[in-house]
Amino acid sequence: MNMPVPSSDPSPSAEAAGPAPDFDALRERAFNLRWATVDADVIPLTAADPDLPVSAAVTEAIARYIAKPHLSYGPACGLPAFREAVARHFAEGKSSSTVDAGRVIATNSAASAITLVARHLLSPGDEVVVQDPVDFLVAESARRAGATIRRWTPSADPHAVGAAGQARFTPAGLRALLASPEAARVKVVSVCHPHNPLGTLWSADEVAEIAEIVAEHGATLLSDEVWSDVVLDGAGFTSFASCGGRGDRAPWVVYGLSKGYALAGLRIGAVIAPSGDAAAAFARAQGFDHTIEGAATLSQVAATAALEQAGGWRADFLSHCGRQRDLAMARLGALPGVRIARAPQATFVLFCDIRGTGLGEEELAVRIEREARVRVVPGSPRWFGSGAAGHIRLSLATTREVLDEALGRIERAWARIVG
Amino acid sequence: MNMPVPSSDPSPSAEAAGPAPDFDALRERAFNLRWATVDADVIPLTAADPDLPVSAAVTEAIARYIAKPHLSYGPACGLPAFREAVARHFAEGKSSSTVDAGRVIATNSAASAITLVARHLLSPGDEVVVQDPVDFLVAESARRAGATIRRWTPSADPHAVGAAGQARFTPAGLRALLASPEAARVKVVSVCHPHNPLGTLWSADEVAEIAEIVAEHGATLLSDEVWSDVVLDGAGFTSFASCGGRGDRAPWVVYGLSKGYALAGLRIGAVIAPSGDAAAAFARAQGFDHTIEGAATLSQVAATAALEQAGGWRADFLSHCGRQRDLAMARLGALPGVRIARAPQATFVLFCDIRGTGLGEEELAVRIEREARVRVVPGSPRWFGSGAAGHIRLSLATTREVLDEALGRIERAWARIVG
Repeated sequence: MNMPVPSSDPSPSAEAAGPAPDFDALRERAFNLRWATVDADVIPLTAADPDLPVSAAVTEAIARYIAKPHLSYGPACGLPAFREAVARHFAEGKSSSTVDAGRVIATNSAASAITLVARHLLSPGDEVVVQDPVDFLVAESARRAGATIRRWTPSADPHAVGAAGQARFTPAGLRALLASPEAARVKVVSVCHPHNPLGTLWSADEVAEIAEIVAEHGATLLSDEVWSDVVLDGAGFTSFASCGGRGDRAPWVVYGLSKGYALAGLRIGAVIAPSGDAAAAFARAQGFDHTIEGAATLSQVAATAALEQAGGWRADFLSHCGRQRDLAMARLGALPGVRIARAPQATFVLFCDIRGTGLGEEELAVRIEREARVRVVPGSPRWFGSGAAGHIRLSLATTREVLDEALGRIERAWARIVG
Repeated sequence: MNMPVPSSDPSPSAEAAGPAPDFDALRERAFNLRWATVDADVIPLTAADPDLPVSAAVTEAIARYIAKPHLSYGPACGLPAFREAVARHFAEGKSSSTVDAGRVIATNSAASAITLVARHLLSPGDEVVVQDPVDFLVAESARRAGATIRRWTPSADPHAVGAAGQARFTPAGLRALLASPEAARVKVVSVCHPHNPLGTLWSADEVAEIAEIVAEHGATLLSDEVWSDVVLDGAGFTSFASCGGRGDRAPWVVYGLSKGYALAGLRIGAVIAPSGDAAAAFARAQGFDHTIEGAATLSQVAATAALEQAGGWRADFLSHCGRQRDLAMARLGALPGVRIARAPQATFVLFCDIRGTGLGEEELAVRIEREARVRVVPGSPRWFGSGAAGHIRLSLATTREVLDEALGRIERAWARIVG
């Protein structure tokens, strides 16, 4: 097979906000199911990690930092500038004016943050509510903490396009789940907000209501907000960090810069604890005070620059993600057997119901790679829980040209794929 | 008090190998008990983190990397170039020709690596041998894994200077410890090699003998070799990674670039597992395969450059450390009540017996800071175990001028300090 694959032609695409991606660099650098790990003629629409170059503000900040060649120990809980930048980012952009730097702890990625908070909040035998479907990391972290998992399945979404309506997690659904007598042992309720892979977003009212339901149950809420920088169509975002006032029972929020600023390789994230005291106790208990945990200072410098100076970059990126979504929805949704119930309100992934093809998600993904030379993520239980069965997920954060090429390959091969 | 403190005068000292440190930058960046955390007129000889600028090879590699502005996900176990560089570094410089890249896993600092290996090897109720004194991290990690600690105290060193002879950990001492009936539950024997804070170094024969003793006992050896790049006087170093051939019972080695290359802020270290299979199993069990654990790619790029191109920098640094040691030994050893039994063979710290002053280590450290405006690390149980009582530790990896100033301050204030 010898299909055209992206080259490093430096001419930017008409739609691109900044410089074109360097696909040669991506083939060397982009791991985790992406360019560096697939066959040379395969386009990976897999792990949620943008192909687009990072903001120049990021690389310029790194260059300025290393102009003074000292890479000494950073502070245990993160650089003051990083902690302040995250607090401002949540106060100004995520309706969480009560977040201050003392509640923020820099972590070695959002994934690490989820695992540490789960370990901090859960003991063996505790029960934790985990959405189904949802990104695998919370369930993985809960299992590592010895907790048992109670699955929260979505309700039909009355606003969804199409006959059956795509799933949506609702406060009423959570209330019903926690009302069952067996839910008494639930100690933590986890949410992914915005939701990966559904792309759904809760309103400020829903956020407040969910926080209230969890608090009434005497449980603690853990909100994975790694996607909160990728809210589309100019919609607002309300973090669970805004739900304060309950002391130790207020939500714990996990954040990261891999999605909204394309910094996955720098492994930089944060925990936003319910209070400064809770943050300090977390840092002691989880080893930050002993240099066991922590984030690289250079990653924090890069992240600080992203948060403070890459607003324009992110606005362009979000517009681009919206256009990519619209293109992919229109073309994938037109394929026989594929149904996309609702446009994602957030994230740059598209979760497609492929049950109409009569094929399982693993089989379909294998055939798409074999026949169309495009790799997608199957909605396998190991990645998203059993609620993802019959779906595939595509990451759209590449150029218009590459997405167009990938969609064209799938369209041309579709009869063979499902035949 | 208004004593002279280092300025950022750009003129290099006569002894300095490269550019002078930028003390203004250190006051902004060097945390963990160092310049950014002490009063403006205090000289910190505390955490083991050099004041000297990093090799230009490191900053140049970072600059080259970010010239292509893609910071995508790295591979789970580390960049191939990093893993290969660490393997070569151990093969060529640490007498461990059997180490290959498949045994190396990149970690978020050596401290993180110690904790992960302890968690991997130990279950609650297991017993682990920990030297006393020794850096606190292994004991801290063992406690976090739920293990109980059996302390290994040193024997008198027949080669030490002075009447009493400073302590040294010997194979015979370990054999005697493990021969006791209560030692049957020992599952892991940990060592710090070279030893912090004693500065002692084992010969190739001692390394082989210790590995053999541990294997005969049916235990696993965990060697913290974060100081293995700071061996003085041109001496050789034999890693426990050279003791292969015992499959799962072969030693686990932890390594990092904070000491020998001054990269503490980048949090880059490595685990060297007994085999490629053991490394893969460790990566799965400890979350590397799920992006929970891992090291920032930029930190790995910097570390790779250090290992491959900063040999000249390190040679100059080691010569400098030797001269600093000789200066500090001569002048501190001449103070009434201070005894330094033996010149450190490795590390850039000096562990001083201060029992002759009649003061406890905490009280002496407080007085040194108050009267001389120099901060040192007291030999407190929380930092080094009870075997460090009656000692203080000084880090010497600063300029000749700053060390001279700090020593002068201590000398001039000594009568008040101990009076």
